[in-house]
Amino acid sequence: MKNPEPPPIDAALQPIYDAHDHGKIEVNLKAPIKDADDLSKVYTPGVAEVCMRIADYPTEKAKYTAAPGIVAVVSDGTAVLGLGDIGPDAALPVMEGKACLFKQFGGLDSFPIVLNTTDVDEIIHIVKAMAPSFGAINLEDISAPRCFEIEDRLKEDLKIPIMHDDQHGTAIVVTAALRNARILSGRSDGDLRIVIAGAGAAGIACAKMLYSTGVTDIVLTDSKGAIHKGRPDLTPVKQGLLSWTNKDDLTGSTEEILDGMDCFIGLSGGTIHESAIATMSKDPIIFSLSNPTPEVHPELAKKYATVIATGRSDFPNQINNVLAFPGVFKGAFQAGATAITEDMKIAAAVAIADVVLDELTPERIIPDPFDPRVVPAVTAAVAKAWTDGADWIIR
Amino acid sequence: MKNPEPPPIDAALQPIYDAHDHGKIEVNLKAPIKDADDLSKVYTPGVAEVCMRIADYPTEKAKYTAAPGIVAVVSDGTAVLGLGDIGPDAALPVMEGKACLFKQFGGLDSFPIVLNTTDVDEIIHIVKAMAPSFGAINLEDISAPRCFEIEDRLKEDLKIPIMHDDQHGTAIVVTAALRNARILSGRSDGDLRIVIAGAGAAGIACAKMLYSTGVTDIVLTDSKGAIHKGRPDLTPVKQGLLSWTNKDDLTGSTEEILDGMDCFIGLSGGTIHESAIATMSKDPIIFSLSNPTPEVHPELAKKYATVIATGRSDFPNQINNVLAFPGVFKGAFQAGATAITEDMKIAAAVAIADVVLDELTPERIIPDPFDPRVVPAVTAAVAKAWTDGADWIIR
Repeated sequence: MKNPEPPPIDAALQPIYDAHDHGKIEVNLKAPIKDADDLSKVYTPGVAEVCMRIADYPTEKAKYTAAPGIVAVVSDGTAVLGLGDIGPDAALPVMEGKACLFKQFGGLDSFPIVLNTTDVDEIIHIVKAMAPSFGAINLEDISAPRCFEIEDRLKEDLKIPIMHDDQHGTAIVVTAALRNARILSGRSDGDLRIVIAGAGAAGIACAKMLYSTGVTDIVLTDSKGAIHKGRPDLTPVKQGLLSWTNKDDLTGSTEEILDGMDCFIGLSGGTIHESAIATMSKDPIIFSLSNPTPEVHPELAKKYATVIATGRSDFPNQINNVLAFPGVFKGAFQAGATAITEDMKIAAAVAIADVVLDELTPERIIPDPFDPRVVPAVTAAVAKAWTDGADWIIR
Repeated sequence: MKNPEPPPIDAALQPIYDAHDHGKIEVNLKAPIKDADDLSKVYTPGVAEVCMRIADYPTEKAKYTAAPGIVAVVSDGTAVLGLGDIGPDAALPVMEGKACLFKQFGGLDSFPIVLNTTDVDEIIHIVKAMAPSFGAINLEDISAPRCFEIEDRLKEDLKIPIMHDDQHGTAIVVTAALRNARILSGRSDGDLRIVIAGAGAAGIACAKMLYSTGVTDIVLTDSKGAIHKGRPDLTPVKQGLLSWTNKDDLTGSTEEILDGMDCFIGLSGGTIHESAIATMSKDPIIFSLSNPTPEVHPELAKKYATVIATGRSDFPNQINNVLAFPGVFKGAFQAGATAITEDMKIAAAVAIADVVLDELTPERIIPDPFDPRVVPAVTAAVAKAWTDGADWIIR
């Protein structure tokens, strides 16, 4: 039987399912339609007046429609959380969740659009065609390397803020966390030797942003080990990494190349054994971000490292994209930005880090997602960076 | 200068613009995210559990996502109200208004998707690709004859409720109104001779539904007059009308063929002179539905007709689609329908008419849009018709 009856829900998980009962979002009117007078304003005949004004003066769309303030959360369901290619239907709870976070943390309206195509050209075409319905595009859970081309080409063609959050949201928060971790560990950016396990969307985006901010000794690894010049199996995207990562052309597995490294950033979902951690430089920085199972369990990491971050909410220093994306899009909207630039992303990272700069401890290198200072700080920094640019070198 | 500064807004129109300030809809969370525990249920890690369940048991999507209850309001902006092809941006106030009506009158979530393409194949392709994000499709303000092909092909390919409201919403309410008008005027369906001015989306749909319900003597006219066998200029869609309309093969302008007719249904936006109305049969039925300027002004129509309907809220008997579409989609959802059938539409028409059956007067052939009995009656009738079918002949 292809689709047997779904099994009963484990009682312990019932609260999760209750929170998803018939979905998590709803579309509401801003003001009720109480009578014929209201109706004649919101709909015919009054609405025709507004339509004609926008037809005659297109910039008036920003004043009299909701669309320019709505973020499309777009996914094809090919790389959902750590679950992989589960398709658009099964991706919906994540996209609705994202819409919830946009509203709860950023006060922004957003709407999930899941697509039942995985073709790059089609996705680009569709997003462009429906772009008039939205003010910004948050690409979500689209697998690498397709996600790179989709984001790049949409950014070329559409003059609205666009961000693939799995890449840049993660990169922003990792960069923020590393900025403060470095301060605590007394290392300078130039010295910092980093291994990033995972050369997918998030790993490559983290490497790029860290490099932009002055961290130049980075080795990325994938399931076959270090990305190095001798690898015959590299995709074009991974080949592109060779010119600026792994400058010593290290070879070997992730565990092998950890020897002497200062920082491990795990985005791979694998397991790193204690013996490999033991070979890292004294008091390393360990960001073990896979969810729900970190590459290095925080209790184990603690034996070697002072500053530890994970992707989990039940340990200190959770690397959570919700620290970034609500403020990034809010700042972009506030500035009237027609794109999300590298400067804006770096400004977001610095702003997140700075929220806790005066209260830094190894357990507090980044703010809690519910810290009310975060979104205003990120929003202001991002909006400012749209017009003024950002400091590219971490102080 | 292409886009000069928009002129100041007329003070009398300001309340309309105020009602549109930054748009009329918002996307909300059903429940707030108050703390880390809420966050872990709504988003990671808890959400993964729900995603996996849907991946394993696709029917669970209906229980744990909002999408199956959300109506997409899709338009390309080519036939917006009576304003014509004003494009997707200028169409947005209508689509947002529609979303407001869905919520206010039907309690249904809906979301406007305007497309910057007018290509039939592209629109079909795009709507199909984003269909997993929605539970139903309301096509809106898409010009004829493109709207026919778009609706037909989408209905073939997607197993969810789909309705082009300009066609069928109008047809449902006109059919409801005519059912009661006929009772008041003592005519039977078989006798009723009707002229429909306007052979676009609404006119053709009205003709079809009236025909289905036993009104078989119908002549449609367009800007060149009656649609008759001798016309060399007919589109394929209009040619399709020849086999079942205009059975006497009348020729001439709308005004000319009104001679002796029992009923005029105006959906054309033109003007009918008093001299033509005077030639109709005694006490004709006049539905003069163009907005804001009816083809026959109600005050003038009153000199000849007892039963008059318009598209305006400031005269009795407003033919307003909001009487139909909220209940039609709500009923379809309630029945778990995979389409909106002819039976469901006719059931809706009968239900609307029946709401006021016991209180019929010439000023009250259809209920007021705010009559609280309408949506429950339509919903129940439509849901029942999905399973049981509908009476095809008006009683």
